[in-house]
Amino acid sequence: MAGKLPVSPLALPLPALPPVAGVRLAAGEAGIRYQGRTDVLLAEFCPGTTVAGVFTKNLCPGAPVTYCRDILGQGTASGLVVNAGNANVFNGIAGLRAVEATANAAAHTLGVSADQIFLASTGVIGEPLPAHKIVAVLDQLHANLSEDGLAAAARAIMTTDTFPKAATRLAELGGKTVRITGIAKGSGMIAPDMATMLAFLFTDAAIPAPALQAMLAQGVDQTFNCITIDSDTSTSDTVLLFATGRAGNGPTDDPAALADFRRALGEVLHELAMMVVRDGEGAQKFVQITVDGAVTDASARRIGLAIANSPLVKTAIAGEDANWGRIVMAIGKAGEPADRDRLAIAVGGTWMAQAGGVVPGYDEAPVVAHMKGREIKIEVQMGLGQGRATVWTCDLTHGYIDINGSYRS
Amino acid sequence: MAGKLPVSPLALPLPALPPVAGVRLAAGEAGIRYQGRTDVLLAEFCPGTTVAGVFTKNLCPGAPVTYCRDILGQGTASGLVVNAGNANVFNGIAGLRAVEATANAAAHTLGVSADQIFLASTGVIGEPLPAHKIVAVLDQLHANLSEDGLAAAARAIMTTDTFPKAATRLAELGGKTVRITGIAKGSGMIAPDMATMLAFLFTDAAIPAPALQAMLAQGVDQTFNCITIDSDTSTSDTVLLFATGRAGNGPTDDPAALADFRRALGEVLHELAMMVVRDGEGAQKFVQITVDGAVTDASARRIGLAIANSPLVKTAIAGEDANWGRIVMAIGKAGEPADRDRLAIAVGGTWMAQAGGVVPGYDEAPVVAHMKGREIKIEVQMGLGQGRATVWTCDLTHGYIDINGSYRS
Repeated sequence: MAGKLPVSPLALPLPALPPVAGVRLAAGEAGIRYQGRTDVLLAEFCPGTTVAGVFTKNLCPGAPVTYCRDILGQGTASGLVVNAGNANVFNGIAGLRAVEATANAAAHTLGVSADQIFLASTGVIGEPLPAHKIVAVLDQLHANLSEDGLAAAARAIMTTDTFPKAATRLAELGGKTVRITGIAKGSGMIAPDMATMLAFLFTDAAIPAPALQAMLAQGVDQTFNCITIDSDTSTSDTVLLFATGRAGNGPTDDPAALADFRRALGEVLHELAMMVVRDGEGAQKFVQITVDGAVTDASARRIGLAIANSPLVKTAIAGEDANWGRIVMAIGKAGEPADRDRLAIAVGGTWMAQAGGVVPGYDEAPVVAHMKGREIKIEVQMGLGQGRATVWTCDLTHGYIDINGSYRS
Repeated sequence: MAGKLPVSPLALPLPALPPVAGVRLAAGEAGIRYQGRTDVLLAEFCPGTTVAGVFTKNLCPGAPVTYCRDILGQGTASGLVVNAGNANVFNGIAGLRAVEATANAAAHTLGVSADQIFLASTGVIGEPLPAHKIVAVLDQLHANLSEDGLAAAARAIMTTDTFPKAATRLAELGGKTVRITGIAKGSGMIAPDMATMLAFLFTDAAIPAPALQAMLAQGVDQTFNCITIDSDTSTSDTVLLFATGRAGNGPTDDPAALADFRRALGEVLHELAMMVVRDGEGAQKFVQITVDGAVTDASARRIGLAIANSPLVKTAIAGEDANWGRIVMAIGKAGEPADRDRLAIAVGGTWMAQAGGVVPGYDEAPVVAHMKGREIKIEVQMGLGQGRATVWTCDLTHGYIDINGSYRS
C-alpha cells in the first residue's frame, strides 16, 4: 500500500512478554520487500522440544505450508524461520527450492538437521522468494538469539498489521507453573478454515506431540476458526505450538492433568484471534455475533459466519446503522435451518425483532447509541434447538478498499 | 442513501420497447419511501395468460414471495403489482395483511379474483409496508394502463439502480413471430441462488404454464444464477414470466417447437442479468470470469463464484491490479478439486500463470493496459477435466461502501 497505515483504533497494547525457557529468538532485516524494518525471525528451541501445527485448508497452499505439513509428523522441532513481505506461494519448483535453501541454511546455522526447521512466509503471492536474502542474515540472527526476543519477533512478522500481537498465560501442570506465550500476525485474507494468519506459540511445558496436537486443533477450532475479516482464506495460514519441556513437569497426555494447560492455551489463542480481528484491514468496529437456539453448534457457527461475512451487514455496521433487516437476510442465506417467525435479534442487548417482526414498542435510542461505539454486540435467537456459537468480525470500511486496492503498488 | 447516485459508468441505454400484445401497464407515485418519482407498477394481463416464476432460496423470504409461491401453482395470472422502497420482509402478520390488502384491492380494480394478482416488493426490510398508499393509487393506475407502459414500468421498480433495465427479442413459434420483453431492477444484495432482484418478463406467445416454468428455471440458472455483486442473497428475489397467448400460435409444450423461443428467452434473461451486474453498487468495472477444465460444470461455477465473490480479488480489480495471486487464493478456498501445479490464469487474454508459477518471460504490459479498461476478462484453466462455467461480477469500490453504509438514512 502507499504509505504507512494508521494504527487501528481497536488496537491493544503489547503485553509484557517474559522469556519462555528453552526458546531463544532474534529478528533482523533481510530487505525482502520492506525497508527500514525487521522482516525475518529466527527461533531456536532446546533439544527435546515437541511441536503441533494447524494449517490452511486452502487447496492452493504455499510451499512453506506443504513443507511444514511434511515434517510435522516427527513431532519435534529445533528451529523456526519466518519472513514477511513474500508468501512464497504459487512459485512452482522455485518455491520449493527457496524453502529447501532456507531450511538447509538454518539447519547449518543451528547445527541440527533440516527436517527440524519449521518455516513460514507471509506477504505477496506469486513472486519468487529471494531465499538468499534470508540466508545472508542467518549468522547475524544466530548471534543475536535471546530469550527476550518475543516482542521483536511479534513485530518482525507483521505485513499490513498496524500493531504487534502477543498474549501470554500461566498454567499449572504436574505441580509446576508453566508459561504459554503466543505471537500472531494477520489483518486481511482472514476467514475460516482457518483464520488466516501466522501464529506461533511457545511453552516451557513438557507435553508429547500427539497431546499437543489435539489441544491445539481444538483450541484453534474455537478461536481462529471463529473469526473472519473478509471471507478470504489465505494460502499461508499456519499455527505452530512448540513445547520445550524446560518447566520440568513430567510429560503427560492425561486429559485431566492437562485441563489447566488447555484452558490457558485456549485463552492465548482467543486473545490472539481477537487481536487479529481488531486489526482487520480498515476496521473501525469490533463485532461479536452470538447465535443461540440453532439446531446444532455447527449450524449456529455457519449462521454466525454468514452474518459476519455479509458485506451488507458489515457496511451497515460501518455506517452505524442497526439494520437488522440485513441480519435477517444473512441468516436466510446461510442455508441452515431457520424459521423466520421464530427469529429474534438483539443489538447491544436490546431485542429489536422477534416472532417474525419488529418488537412492539421498540425504542431505537439505546441501539443507536450502541452502534456509535467501538464494540458491537449482535445476538440472534433461532428458536429451534440448543445449538450455540460465537464468532467475531469487524466492519467493512473505505479503509479496506484503500488497503486492498493498491497492496502491490 | 444521501443524495442521488451518479449513473453507473457501465450503464447501457434503454432499448426501444414495442408493446407486448395482451399486456398493459401503468406506473404511479404512491410515495411509499421516495418522493418525486414513480414507485408503484400495475400490470394487467388478458384472459388466458399463463405464468411461471422463480424465487429466492433465502430461507427468510418476504411476504410477497411466500404469497406468489402459493398462487403460482394455478399457472394463470391476471395482474401484477410491484412497489419500490419497502420490501415487506420480516413484518410478521402485518406483512401478510399488507399483501392481502394489496391483492384484494388490485383484484377489485381489475375485476378478477385475488389469487390471480402477483405481487412483488423491494426496498428496506423490517419496516411495515403502508399498503393503503398503494391501494390509494390503484384506480388512477387502472385509468392509465397502456400497452406502451414498459419503459415507465422499468423505471418505477428501481431502488438503488442508477439506470432502468430492459431487453427484448423476437422468436419464431408455431409459424408466428412472438415477442419477449423483460424489465429488471437490482444492484446490490445480488448473488445466487438466485441473483437478487426483481425481473418481469412478458410475451405474447401461447405456452402452457409447465413448459413456461421449465424454460424459465433453465434460463435463470444460466444467467441470474451466474452473477454476483456482493454474495448477499436478497429475501425478495423474484422472476416472473407472463405469456398472454395473443400472438395466435397454437399452444405447445414440444421442446423442439420451443427451441427458438427458449433461445430468445435465454438472451433476454442474459441481457437483463448483465445489466444488473453493470449497475452493481459502486461498480466501475464489469468482470467476466470463465473457468474451464474443472471436474464438472457445477464445480467450475463454484470456483468462478469464489473468485467473483472474493473481496480481495474485487478490490484488486478496482485498483487496476492484475493480482493473480489473489485469484489463486480464491480458487483454493472454493473447496473444489484443484491442483496448484496444473492451474493457469489469464487476464485480458494474456496467460500470466501456469503450471504452478508465473509464465516464463511474462510481460505485464498488455495486462496492465487491460486492467485500466471497463471490461475485465479473467480466464482460469484448471487442467483437471471438461467442466466449464462463466460468471459475471463487478469490482468492489468506495462507492459500494458509500451506498451501503447509509442506505436507510
